[in-house]
Amino acid sequence: MEYRIEKDTMGEVKVPADKLWGAQTERSRNNFKIGNVASMPLEVVYGFAYLKKAAAYTNCELGVLPIEKRDLIATVCDEILNGEHDDQFPLVIWQTGSGTQSNMNVNEVIANRAHQLAGKTIGEGDKTIQPNDDVNKSQSSNDTFPTGMHIAAYTKIVKNTIPGVKQLRDTLKKKSETFKNVVKIGRTHLMDATPLTLGQEFSGYVSQLEHGLKALENTLPHLSEIALGGTAVGTGLNTPKGYSKRVAEYIAEFTGQPFITAPNKFEALAAHDAIVESHGALKQLAVSLNKIANDIRMMASGPRSGIGEIIIPANEPGSSIMPGKVNPTQCEALTMVCAQVMGNDVAISVGGTQGHYELNVFKPMMAANILQSAQLIGDACVSFDVNCAAGIEPNHEVIKELLNNSLMLVTALNTKIGYYKAAEIANTAHKNGTTLKVEAVNLGYVTAEEYDEWVKPEEMVGSLK
Amino acid sequence: MEYRIEKDTMGEVKVPADKLWGAQTERSRNNFKIGNVASMPLEVVYGFAYLKKAAAYTNCELGVLPIEKRDLIATVCDEILNGEHDDQFPLVIWQTGSGTQSNMNVNEVIANRAHQLAGKTIGEGDKTIQPNDDVNKSQSSNDTFPTGMHIAAYTKIVKNTIPGVKQLRDTLKKKSETFKNVVKIGRTHLMDATPLTLGQEFSGYVSQLEHGLKALENTLPHLSEIALGGTAVGTGLNTPKGYSKRVAEYIAEFTGQPFITAPNKFEALAAHDAIVESHGALKQLAVSLNKIANDIRMMASGPRSGIGEIIIPANEPGSSIMPGKVNPTQCEALTMVCAQVMGNDVAISVGGTQGHYELNVFKPMMAANILQSAQLIGDACVSFDVNCAAGIEPNHEVIKELLNNSLMLVTALNTKIGYYKAAEIANTAHKNGTTLKVEAVNLGYVTAEEYDEWVKPEEMVGSLK
Amino acid sequence: MEYRIEKDTMGEVKVPADKLWGAQTERSRNNFKIGNVASMPLEVVYGFAYLKKAAAYTNCELGVLPIEKRDLIATVCDEILNGEHDDQFPLVIWQTGSGTQSNMNVNEVIANRAHQLAGKTIGEGDKTIQPNDDVNKSQSSNDTFPTGMHIAAYTKIVKNTIPGVKQLRDTLKKKSETFKNVVKIGRTHLMDATPLTLGQEFSGYVSQLEHGLKALENTLPHLSEIALGGTAVGTGLNTPKGYSKRVAEYIAEFTGQPFITAPNKFEALAAHDAIVESHGALKQLAVSLNKIANDIRMMASGPRSGIGEIIIPANEPGSSIMPGKVNPTQCEALTMVCAQVMGNDVAISVGGTQGHYELNVFKPMMAANILQSAQLIGDACVSFDVNCAAGIEPNHEVIKELLNNSLMLVTALNTKIGYYKAAEIANTAHKNGTTLKVEAVNLGYVTAEEYDEWVKPEEMVGSLK
Amino acid sequence: MEYRIEKDTMGEVKVPADKLWGAQTERSRNNFKIGNVASMPLEVVYGFAYLKKAAAYTNCELGVLPIEKRDLIATVCDEILNGEHDDQFPLVIWQTGSGTQSNMNVNEVIANRAHQLAGKTIGEGDKTIQPNDDVNKSQSSNDTFPTGMHIAAYTKIVKNTIPGVKQLRDTLKKKSETFKNVVKIGRTHLMDATPLTLGQEFSGYVSQLEHGLKALENTLPHLSEIALGGTAVGTGLNTPKGYSKRVAEYIAEFTGQPFITAPNKFEALAAHDAIVESHGALKQLAVSLNKIANDIRMMASGPRSGIGEIIIPANEPGSSIMPGKVNPTQCEALTMVCAQVMGNDVAISVGGTQGHYELNVFKPMMAANILQSAQLIGDACVSFDVNCAAGIEPNHEVIKELLNNSLMLVTALNTKIGYYKAAEIANTAHKNGTTLKVEAVNLGYVTAEEYDEWVKPEEMVGSLK
Repeated sequence: MEYRIEKDTMGEVKVPADKLWGAQTERSRNNFKIGNVASMPLEVVYGFAYLKKAAAYTNCELGVLPIEKRDLIATVCDEILNGEHDDQFPLVIWQTGSGTQSNMNVNEVIANRAHQLAGKTIGEGDKTIQPNDDVNKSQSSNDTFPTGMHIAAYTKIVKNTIPGVKQLRDTLKKKSETFKNVVKIGRTHLMDATPLTLGQEFSGYVSQLEHGLKALENTLPHLSEIALGGTAVGTGLNTPKGYSKRVAEYIAEFTGQPFITAPNKFEALAAHDAIVESHGALKQLAVSLNKIANDIRMMASGPRSGIGEIIIPANEPGSSIMPGKVNPTQCEALTMVCAQVMGNDVAISVGGTQGHYELNVFKPMMAANILQSAQLIGDACVSFDVNCAAGIEPNHEVIKELLNNSLMLVTALNTKIGYYKAAEIANTAHKNGTTLKVEAVNLGYVTAEEYDEWVKPEEMVGSLK
Repeated sequence: MEYRIEKDTMGEVKVPADKLWGAQTERSRNNFKIGNVASMPLEVVYGFAYLKKAAAYTNCELGVLPIEKRDLIATVCDEILNGEHDDQFPLVIWQTGSGTQSNMNVNEVIANRAHQLAGKTIGEGDKTIQPNDDVNKSQSSNDTFPTGMHIAAYTKIVKNTIPGVKQLRDTLKKKSETFKNVVKIGRTHLMDATPLTLGQEFSGYVSQLEHGLKALENTLPHLSEIALGGTAVGTGLNTPKGYSKRVAEYIAEFTGQPFITAPNKFEALAAHDAIVESHGALKQLAVSLNKIANDIRMMASGPRSGIGEIIIPANEPGSSIMPGKVNPTQCEALTMVCAQVMGNDVAISVGGTQGHYELNVFKPMMAANILQSAQLIGDACVSFDVNCAAGIEPNHEVIKELLNNSLMLVTALNTKIGYYKAAEIANTAHKNGTTLKVEAVNLGYVTAEEYDEWVKPEEMVGSLK
Repeated sequence: MEYRIEKDTMGEVKVPADKLWGAQTERSRNNFKIGNVASMPLEVVYGFAYLKKAAAYTNCELGVLPIEKRDLIATVCDEILNGEHDDQFPLVIWQTGSGTQSNMNVNEVIANRAHQLAGKTIGEGDKTIQPNDDVNKSQSSNDTFPTGMHIAAYTKIVKNTIPGVKQLRDTLKKKSETFKNVVKIGRTHLMDATPLTLGQEFSGYVSQLEHGLKALENTLPHLSEIALGGTAVGTGLNTPKGYSKRVAEYIAEFTGQPFITAPNKFEALAAHDAIVESHGALKQLAVSLNKIANDIRMMASGPRSGIGEIIIPANEPGSSIMPGKVNPTQCEALTMVCAQVMGNDVAISVGGTQGHYELNVFKPMMAANILQSAQLIGDACVSFDVNCAAGIEPNHEVIKELLNNSLMLVTALNTKIGYYKAAEIANTAHKNGTTLKVEAVNLGYVTAEEYDEWVKPEEMVGSLK
Repeated sequence: MEYRIEKDTMGEVKVPADKLWGAQTERSRNNFKIGNVASMPLEVVYGFAYLKKAAAYTNCELGVLPIEKRDLIATVCDEILNGEHDDQFPLVIWQTGSGTQSNMNVNEVIANRAHQLAGKTIGEGDKTIQPNDDVNKSQSSNDTFPTGMHIAAYTKIVKNTIPGVKQLRDTLKKKSETFKNVVKIGRTHLMDATPLTLGQEFSGYVSQLEHGLKALENTLPHLSEIALGGTAVGTGLNTPKGYSKRVAEYIAEFTGQPFITAPNKFEALAAHDAIVESHGALKQLAVSLNKIANDIRMMASGPRSGIGEIIIPANEPGSSIMPGKVNPTQCEALTMVCAQVMGNDVAISVGGTQGHYELNVFKPMMAANILQSAQLIGDACVSFDVNCAAGIEPNHEVIKELLNNSLMLVTALNTKIGYYKAAEIANTAHKNGTTLKVEAVNLGYVTAEEYDEWVKPEEMVGSLK
């Protein structure tokens, strides 16, 4: 491989000749060989691209950066956002806890690429754009990384998680309405209970997701606060007057999301409670989705020896020998995602507790975990929706049979023949393995006609939605 | 010990003669010898007392319970809420997961005590009030337990947690203002950085708690939804028309809190995402408090070999031999609470995932954990406030010395003599173990007077609050 | 209430006249009003009683404590271990993180009670025994608390957890043997699969618990290491020569458990990885038990609309109206315990990470959590065993019906008529809702006799145990 | 892109023409668009390659596979293990929970590649090797995936984690010996305490890692048990006699690791407690490493306003302006890894609890998490060792100054002049901000010579290692 020489304050470093990054990125590659290469999420890099462009615009507007430099920086940022330099960010999550080296990676790539755009060759001549003095002007790793992290997480949540959950919620809502008259046996403690409709059951899932979406949306204002302008310790040292507010406005404009400058920059650098808060809501969604997916796979179980009340789409060959074995694979993928999100929540919380003085140095880990969770929940909801939920159908025959066999329907007789006679009927049917109707008539407490008139499951499901 | 005989549908049970509970409670005592006795939190029992009274009023109003029974039930509920029967609830958390047996414990105690109030002897004569038919009328364990749990958790949060956190927040805010001119060295990565004020540092803590309180308050609407009226599976079977809404109004009236009937009862029985959601916010507060307590104990460390920038109150004898050894015991209690709350969050989340069909059967465990967390955070904030935060004072001498020794102040010279000369000054001072001023003058870059005029830490802390 | 005056180095404190504790305990009561009173587990107090007695014996043997003082101290320790002073330990978990105040509580109670035993009145005359100089001789909170914590946790695990798990394991093993010929349908992905025996299914549970017990036992050597002798920072300052080894021998003798002195006292004070390690194994057991309890409640579900392959004991009235509704309440209690243990594991791990320099100050929280987990698992296993597992019976009728209905049995025909014809049979039976035999004969691929001869589920379950 | 047509029992699928995979892999790619593509760890694929080769050898030896097919399969497996087909495994973690589709991915790649090796063109002519009948012979996803997972996790732990931890342990041990005479102030509660040596402090770290390694090694026997031979439900249906034992021997031979056949196959499919167990030990190591890294960054803090007792290597430019600002970046990377591992532990535990009947369907998630943790801990230990621990040096000047300033040394005078006079000296020094020696002489309790003779910190550090 060919190399060129890059320098920083510690001296010279050999960098692969075809790469845009510089000395500090290369040092980090060598000093942090931990886990997969390039594990730092690209979403964070894109967050940086937005903020570097916004900083350049603000610096220019406030008179501390020439317009030519602003435009060069902005052009490279646009290229990055266009995915043209994805292979220029080789660093790992497990680096400096402030993400300093990823900040420098972005600074170096922008400076070197700007040099190219200015028609020069990297490594030759004075740098057109200085990574520290120009690209990083009015910034510090300590305020850029949390800003990039918030941009990435916020965007992922509103563009991926929320639409994904809503898509599933909408399908479940439609199913709830479609199934509103499908009366079925209820189950509590996994045991037979009084009836409800399949639509009512699904309405519970809808309500869970509605509450979860509300909870997630409640966290967005905190997540929309960005640290930029705090620089090294939160005081805003070395920023021009008016910078914080203006740079947030540019970020809002470029991203199309309502970011604002954090009212308190000391919190914004030293704590990442906004990440903890938003991930708490993602974890709540995971809890809800786990319940829903579990119910669906239990209800679809069988085909002969399970519950079998619903039919889910067959997307892959089940066992090559057993027809009807439709494994609930989407439920499985979704519940694995839920378990992962529950774990990620602990990782994020642990990281969140450990800020020291003016800086929390668990930033890259926290960023990676919330991005993973937000991606997985959104994706898994869509996958579950398209490949499972949308195709769910009641198995009317099974539902009806289980309902009619149920001993719980005897409750309907309480007001006609009294509790004790009703219980006797149920007990006898249970002992004999017969139906309520058979024993009710045999015991002489009701006629067959009365039974049919009085025991109507569809009248036991209430008027609740 | 003397016993009396109580009966249920499974037969006779011997119950201690001096106890108000009945057969089902006694069975549960014998069948669930798990952990400490009477571990079911009394707050849940009180939640039941509110709802049993509200149910009695609603049932009476809707014509299904005579006024005499209503009044007897209500009187016993008031006695329970008055703490007069605290020793009548011997059951454990680790029972039926629907909390059925605690529901029956309350029903039995109310019925037997009502019998006494009616001038009769327990176990003699027909029961004045039936535990199932009267006290439990229009109810099921499946909707009463989650209702009692929500009443208990909501009340604990608004009466204990929020006031406790606010009290600490107010003190930290006052300190932040008092310390607004105390310029000190900043620290990032635990390493010396540019200065800020002690007031700014504390303002970050205030901002964390503000955000945490907001997050907690955001969860209250979900927690204010109560399940009562759903009965066995959420359909409201066996409730009179209008019951759900009315009973919630009574509960709101009796508790003085804005409880409403859950719009979706199927969720309210089968999932406890509201508990997951509120506990998520408690966990976020734990994360914040851990950061704050950690900072304070590090800043108070010493007296000779630590940081020593602040002085915290001495509440207990430190080492009998070493004066000045003021252990940060309140920080320790608080951070232990934070760790517990982080653990409880996992227990609650795991429980929350495992609802099946129409019922989640992790109710008592979830209730116990959220009540513990809400209590501990509130109590620990008050304890920390009164015994530590309120007494925090800056150690001005140490703060000043560390600030003036700092090499980071050289940043102020950048704009006067240029970056490279400034760096040379700092490097030389670091190497020689001297001060910036000494080396700045020695190197001939500035005069002593210029140094004093240009290097003013108090002008490096920005105008940010 | 009447008070007496007690003193410590900070001055006078009023203590309830009828209590044995002194000034430092009283200060702690007032300074740490966090959560329930007296939440510090008595097991820790008993651990202290063992070590205080052992220290007195060692100090005496090594010539630094008179025999009269040794005997007075030992007598009070024996009284404590006899449960005679349980109400003298009012402190909470949420105190100094070293547990200093609980150490002083024990020291003060022993000193004051010894004064009484010497025929004197507390608060009058010179103290017969000094809490610090005599009871705490050759000790520090920093080495006593972890020692008391290890004694308590070790003892709880070997006396409660392991026997409880073994009792359940033995029952499941017996069931596994009893059920070894009960051929039933297998289920993977919750879907019908090839058959196995109920005994084989239970053998998996046995194997899980065997592995869990082994894992727990693997952790005991680390937990048997005690910190005593390290004193304040691990160097053993102020201990007589030979003290560490000898005091551990006395503790081993008095407790009957193989405690040894920790080879490295610096770890023993500053880290509690032994607690993390043992609790990790308790958490593993929780994971196993959750799987087992879940399976059992699913297999017992019904009576009409569930799986219904096994029958579990009816311990409480299920629904008053529905006979046969035997709620799996022991499964519910057990799985709630499992969720709690999973949460406790996080609390302990978080505490374990946060030792600083020579001391970890999350000791009381860690102690409380491991003791709770060890108690709950042991108790819940016994409760589950006695009230559920021991009474499990197969529902042969259901098992047989589900087995014979299964389409998976067609696998047995593969080698006789080929895969494609077999699949055709299964497909047809699935479509028509009929049995394999019916369609096999209808399609003309086999005769009824051939079918009966070739399709024998009992020959499909292998020779594996 | 060009495609070819592949078929499975559900029909035709278009597969990219240049890929070796088949219909089922392609379906999975389309049905599970969740998170990053190809997230299934390659280590699992390699585990499959080992087991497919072993199965082929065993099947051949037991007479159910021709030697030509064995050799073709084995050749492709060797190619896979040689990394030649890494781009042929595009599936994600979030698929069927049994990992069925990754099993089929391997089967399909082997079959198609074997077809090529036989000189034919994929998609043309009869398949030389059938993916299901030949490659998957005597296997099921249900026993292959857990086998592949165990091979991968075991190998990662013994080849990466353990050597990494040992490397760091060895360095810390060497440092402990090198620093054995460096007497320094001790700290408890973060407060000054009696002295110890820096070597003693490091010996605690060594002891933690020793115990952690022991704990991890204790888990290996369980992890060495492999499921292969259990096939669909654990009964070993469709395996030739002697298969289980023999295939495990081949796997042991090919991998060079002591794998054995799981004594109980029902556990091996339905539960993954071995993964839970091994990960528990990884989590314990994370807890230990977090303590160590935290201590080191606190001790290295400064350069002027921190503790500054040790010097760590400068690997990257710290602040461009502040010399001496050596950020503890390796400590930060390591503690982020620890937080991640703590989170992964919860994900794995949650997955572990949720096996149902004969199968746990959280396999891919559990595999991915344990592999990540094992990799990260090993890598981070090596990185921390090479880039930080190996270069740690005491800052003797600071250590000496802090030690001599300490008021705790007064303890040494207790036995000479009595506790009260000693305390008076310490109190006075604390109040006046002077040294013990100054006040001891001023107060007239000792002469300067006596002080120097009696107060020798190096004699306060005990004889403990």
